[in-house]
Amino acid sequence: MTTQAQAAQKWAIVVHGGAGTIDRGQLRPEQEAAYRAALAKVVEAGATVLDQGGSALDAVETAIHLLEEDPLFNSARGAVFTAEGRIELDASIMDGASLAAGAVAGVTRTRSPLSLARAVMERSPHVMMVGAGADAFSASQGLEQVDPSYFATHRRWRSLENYLKAHDLPVPAKPPGLERPDPANGLAHDEGKHGTVGVVALDLNGDVAAGTSTGGTTGKQWGRVGDSPIIGAGTYASNAACAVSATGAGEYFIRLTVARDIAALVELKGMSLQAAADEVVQNKLTALGGDGGIIAVAPDGQVAWSFNTSGMYRARAAKGEATSIGIYKDEP
Amino acid sequence: MTTQAQAAQKWAIVVHGGAGTIDRGQLRPEQEAAYRAALAKVVEAGATVLDQGGSALDAVETAIHLLEEDPLFNSARGAVFTAEGRIELDASIMDGASLAAGAVAGVTRTRSPLSLARAVMERSPHVMMVGAGADAFSASQGLEQVDPSYFATHRRWRSLENYLKAHDLPVPAKPPGLERPDPANGLAHDEGKHGTVGVVALDLNGDVAAGTSTGGTTGKQWGRVGDSPIIGAGTYASNAACAVSATGAGEYFIRLTVARDIAALVELKGMSLQAAADEVVQNKLTALGGDGGIIAVAPDGQVAWSFNTSGMYRARAAKGEATSIGIYKDEP
Repeated sequence: MTTQAQAAQKWAIVVHGGAGTIDRGQLRPEQEAAYRAALAKVVEAGATVLDQGGSALDAVETAIHLLEEDPLFNSARGAVFTAEGRIELDASIMDGASLAAGAVAGVTRTRSPLSLARAVMERSPHVMMVGAGADAFSASQGLEQVDPSYFATHRRWRSLENYLKAHDLPVPAKPPGLERPDPANGLAHDEGKHGTVGVVALDLNGDVAAGTSTGGTTGKQWGRVGDSPIIGAGTYASNAACAVSATGAGEYFIRLTVARDIAALVELKGMSLQAAADEVVQNKLTALGGDGGIIAVAPDGQVAWSFNTSGMYRARAAKGEATSIGIYKDEP
Repeated sequence: MTTQAQAAQKWAIVVHGGAGTIDRGQLRPEQEAAYRAALAKVVEAGATVLDQGGSALDAVETAIHLLEEDPLFNSARGAVFTAEGRIELDASIMDGASLAAGAVAGVTRTRSPLSLARAVMERSPHVMMVGAGADAFSASQGLEQVDPSYFATHRRWRSLENYLKAHDLPVPAKPPGLERPDPANGLAHDEGKHGTVGVVALDLNGDVAAGTSTGGTTGKQWGRVGDSPIIGAGTYASNAACAVSATGAGEYFIRLTVARDIAALVELKGMSLQAAADEVVQNKLTALGGDGGIIAVAPDGQVAWSFNTSGMYRARAAKGEATSIGIYKDEP
């Protein structure tokens, strides 16, 4: 692309921190302020990468790192516990320019599962790795390893205890790490079952990318994997259509191949990005009984979000436009 | 549906046993005969279910059971070994009527991984389970458990040894089970990296379903998961479009969401099933550098297969039509 074309090209980024039951009045003012500040920091970090000519992939990784490190959100540090009292993390990333993709599920020791997904994409012949094998690949690649206690927070343990008691399931022994200070303590809001983070970006080169990272659902059992590490469900990116990251009741997102479906409506039906997003989320997902939301960006600069829950933590920024941050349904 | 409409309705079934380098002259006559006989037995078993008014899901499960039990094919008994000398099985199933789906990856003790995928679909709130958790769910549901040695064959171990030596990787200790008689010994052909089995079916009720089961790739490492257990990649079914099962270089099938893409072209572009299959397999998959193939069936009775390898083990049957069995590219 010429310098002139680059100058005319937009960049854009959209961020989500999970969708769920987030009604006005549920969050105290200091909670709401904490989420808005976190979203602003994340979207600005990604926007800076893009504004300086960085790639969509780098913007996605930069922004998701901040979300993964922030215990307000259900990914990496501050992730939810499984029924067995473990933290098992899923993530994926996709490059719209090449359709390259990487995904991991059930990893336990990588500080940034999103970066591990990117390593799978860029440094292995594979797209998806799961469990102990994915942990081993991570260590072999020199990605930062942490003790699983690094991810643990007292607040999420309490959620697990409540979940297990409500379901008449045994509460496992407390894992280490719960005693560490949690900067999100007293500020984090329990978003229900839909905690996930995701970022989509369009760079000055006209390429789109998407990434998603999550701890899954509190009390998950049997090696359950949701949509976050499934290419086409929780994450999808193609320069022929758009980049999408999802959050919600993952099983419905897998069955509807939500992210690919939105892209297919854009690519094959010529729908606008917002119309395609609404068709899949408001109509198809709702009809099937699932809830959650998505964020999306297209190579021509269209951005969209759509969710059928009462709230979704979200933010967007684009070249020459004011940054927009939202939590509740009635915000623009 | 009325009895009259049912009488007018077609049933159809298509089966694959993997795609790869299968050239005429590579298979000895007795090998070719063994594969053709196996495919005939499988497709007839599924056809009988459908002809008697059974569901597409039941036909898929019945036919895949036979493929899983037959060591000629890379699924369950006779599956390939991982680099660590284990057998880790992946499978998925999808119901086109409800978009219900189930998938498992990396399971080691369930005699029929396809039936486990169906149990995930029908008896859990989840769509996908992986690793030890999926094994535990299987046992909890009373599915038949076997010692991992049940799946082991000497022939696949030899393939692993060759693979590891060629890649300068250490050969692990021999697992138990290799000494058992292998009815496929001397008959099975090494189809390269694309061993998988799959079945798609249309029942008299007008519902379609798809299922896929595999051992993955010889010498796989790091918990690698291919397309077979990924809904939208290796398996997809929707009464709004078609049912698809894939076999091939799984990473490319995930990146292209091959099964969902074929369905999207049928659903959103109104393409014929064969044209949609060829567009994705012959054009998109080939352009990206991937190889393999797919089978498909639509609610109106259209059936299709498409592969860009030199061969694919395949068979199809439909109400009132002669059964067709093929191996090489030049067969109808």
